[in-house]
Amino acid sequence: MQEKNRKSLTNRLNRIEGQVRGINKMVSEDKYCVDIITQISAIKSSLVSVEALILENHLEEHVVQQMKGKDSASVIKEMLKIYKLAQK
Amino acid sequence: MQEKNRKSLTNRLNRIEGQVRGINKMVSEDKYCVDIITQISAIKSSLVSVEALILENHLEEHVVQQMKGKDSASVIKEMLKIYKLAQK
Amino acid sequence: MQEKNRKSLTNRLNRIEGQVRGINKMVSEDKYCVDIITQISAIKSSLVSVEALILENHLEEHVVQQMKGKDSASVIKEMLKIYKLAQK
Amino acid sequence: MQEKNRKSLTNRLNRIEGQVRGINKMVSEDKYCVDIITQISAIKSSLVSVEALILENHLEEHVVQQMKGKDSASVIKEMLKIYKLAQK
Repeated sequence: MQEKNRKSLTNRLNRIEGQVRGINKMVSEDKYCVDIITQISAIKSSLVSVEALILENHLEEHVVQQMKGKDSASVIKEMLKIYKLAQK
Repeated sequence: MQEKNRKSLTNRLNRIEGQVRGINKMVSEDKYCVDIITQISAIKSSLVSVEALILENHLEEHVVQQMKGKDSASVIKEMLKIYKLAQK
Repeated sequence: MQEKNRKSLTNRLNRIEGQVRGINKMVSEDKYCVDIITQISAIKSSLVSVEALILENHLEEHVVQQMKGKDSASVIKEMLKIYKLAQK
Repeated sequence: MQEKNRKSLTNRLNRIEGQVRGINKMVSEDKYCVDIITQISAIKSSLVSVEALILENHLEEHVVQQMKGKDSASVIKEMLKIYKLAQK
């Protein structure tokens, strides 16, 4: 992974860790359920962004090369697996 | 929130925090992208479970009472908001 | 269901039926995969809107009354079921 | 697209069209909201399967060739677009 991308990912993941800690605090302080659910939804969005960044890196760093190789069938299988994971 | 539910939520959120830290470690160790995406997908599932638990608590603790009150229109609006957040 | 809501739903569902037929045509005419996937995504969005409309109607017409009744536990169970379906 | 895949897609899309018509009937017969939402959820699952089939075909028929060509950057952009559509 390029150093620039790794740094960006580490920053985002640190922020997400802080968000999860924040929700734990909200739970312990008995905050209103709907506000907690709203925060959880924000974390899910952040994770989707992280996922997209990793996927972009994966396509650039590996898939282009893999597709040029002989075993494109297993690359396709892996792409379909990622696609299914993305929908969860 | 009932003490039992709060404890269960705190435990789950602590585990999720650990999972996010684990992903940060995977990124710094340059692990294979698809393995990282698989882990992120696991966190999203964990967050959905937490969300369901909070929603269940919300329905039991608040919505039943709120619906019995006069302002059911705003409760309905809030339920639709949660439904939209859940889909993100 | 109120006549106005039913009419709106029927119109939307007719439109969705037409969209599905349109995709079938695209497949038979060998259109570009990414364009087909874009159209499928549009149908999923339309279905989510229909779902939200039915849920809104359900909350207004049934849930308020049900919550006032004695068996709020089974209403909660049903609300959680809807919430899980929404995420699929 | 291979004839076998096209046939399978056409069959699935015909079935989905029938499912949408079925929901329209449920609405006109004032069926219980939760049952309608359950059926809509089934259609969304069917569409996701169709989407996966088209994506698989797309990867096999186009992406492998495209990646071997010079303009891998635009292929990557398109793959990320599909990934975002899949999550909707």
